[in-house]
Amino acid sequence: MITSETARKPRGAYAKTAGRRREILEAGMDVFATNGFRSGSIREIAEVVGMSQAGLLHHFSNKNELLAGVLELRDDRATEYVDTSAPASIETIRGFVRLIDYNAHQVPGLVELHCVLSAEATSPEHPAHDYFVRRYDWVLSFLTAAFETMRADGQLAAGIDPASAARGMIAMSDGLQVQWLLNRDALDMAEEMRNYLRPLLTVEL
Amino acid sequence: MITSETARKPRGAYAKTAGRRREILEAGMDVFATNGFRSGSIREIAEVVGMSQAGLLHHFSNKNELLAGVLELRDDRATEYVDTSAPASIETIRGFVRLIDYNAHQVPGLVELHCVLSAEATSPEHPAHDYFVRRYDWVLSFLTAAFETMRADGQLAAGIDPASAARGMIAMSDGLQVQWLLNRDALDMAEEMRNYLRPLLTVEL
Repeated sequence: MITSETARKPRGAYAKTAGRRREILEAGMDVFATNGFRSGSIREIAEVVGMSQAGLLHHFSNKNELLAGVLELRDDRATEYVDTSAPASIETIRGFVRLIDYNAHQVPGLVELHCVLSAEATSPEHPAHDYFVRRYDWVLSFLTAAFETMRADGQLAAGIDPASAARGMIAMSDGLQVQWLLNRDALDMAEEMRNYLRPLLTVEL
Repeated sequence: MITSETARKPRGAYAKTAGRRREILEAGMDVFATNGFRSGSIREIAEVVGMSQAGLLHHFSNKNELLAGVLELRDDRATEYVDTSAPASIETIRGFVRLIDYNAHQVPGLVELHCVLSAEATSPEHPAHDYFVRRYDWVLSFLTAAFETMRADGQLAAGIDPASAARGMIAMSDGLQVQWLLNRDALDMAEEMRNYLRPLLTVEL
């Protein structure tokens, strides 16, 4: 017979495990952001959360699995700003610019992580290579669809190619991160992104 | 007395040393491009050029010194395409676009190196951090000067800020590298850079 006591127990244990997993992922984000994925170690992450390596490996059986969790956490956060379930439109572009602003002000460690990891992962041997190839393809087609809708709605300036605008927007976002990380007071990433988009549009962003 | 024999000797030895240094720098470029600076090792570079570690350390006393040499070699190559001694103008911008094209087709390892290293070096603890801060500042002011000249010459579209155009051009270059390295057949970096510049200009590039 399942009493309220035994019924609560797994939930409590699960909640504790989920909380612990989350703590490890946040620590992994920090360590990988600072040292890169290749140099960042499980030992270092375990130290940050005050666990033994064996204890950490109970939650994530290896570094690659931990990385996959970190990337998933990052993507979950992104969808709070860009509604990927709605049809792509100028609202997609607006959400993307809000996300850039949020990242800079609230989660600079995530910006560091993306910057270092996307560069490292260009190597085909990197464990996150396939993830990044797929992610860039997906973001590119989603933003292209947004610019195509905007063209149909007369919101795109003459002669602007939706796919190239989408590719440029992704490149601008990645490139601005490098400059911002080198000198965080020197530029406002969201403002520079709006400067990029303005000549491409016939409407206010 | 210095005979022709003894006079030639130092030159010969110097030429040999310079050649060896150059070989090591090229190998360092490859190894750092593939593994990043942090994970790339002197041992690996020594193996590539068929030297002992001790032999290599006769030319470069440590990894940081080797990195400085690699970056200097990269900058030397860049100035073959962008004339930094001439006053900044639309020719500066044209040279920059030609350099992007050259890098993609002739020295992809350099693109990899720049991509990984500029990301890693955003960390203040990285040995190349100060170099990258200074280099980005310098490129930014040089390109800003070019866009200012273009504005004075009526070559800049209305409402375009020279400093922001310069910052955007650098960001676009860095960001396109990530996408190109993830899938080299998917895009033409120089073409995408021209797509970025076109709406900012009143003249053909």
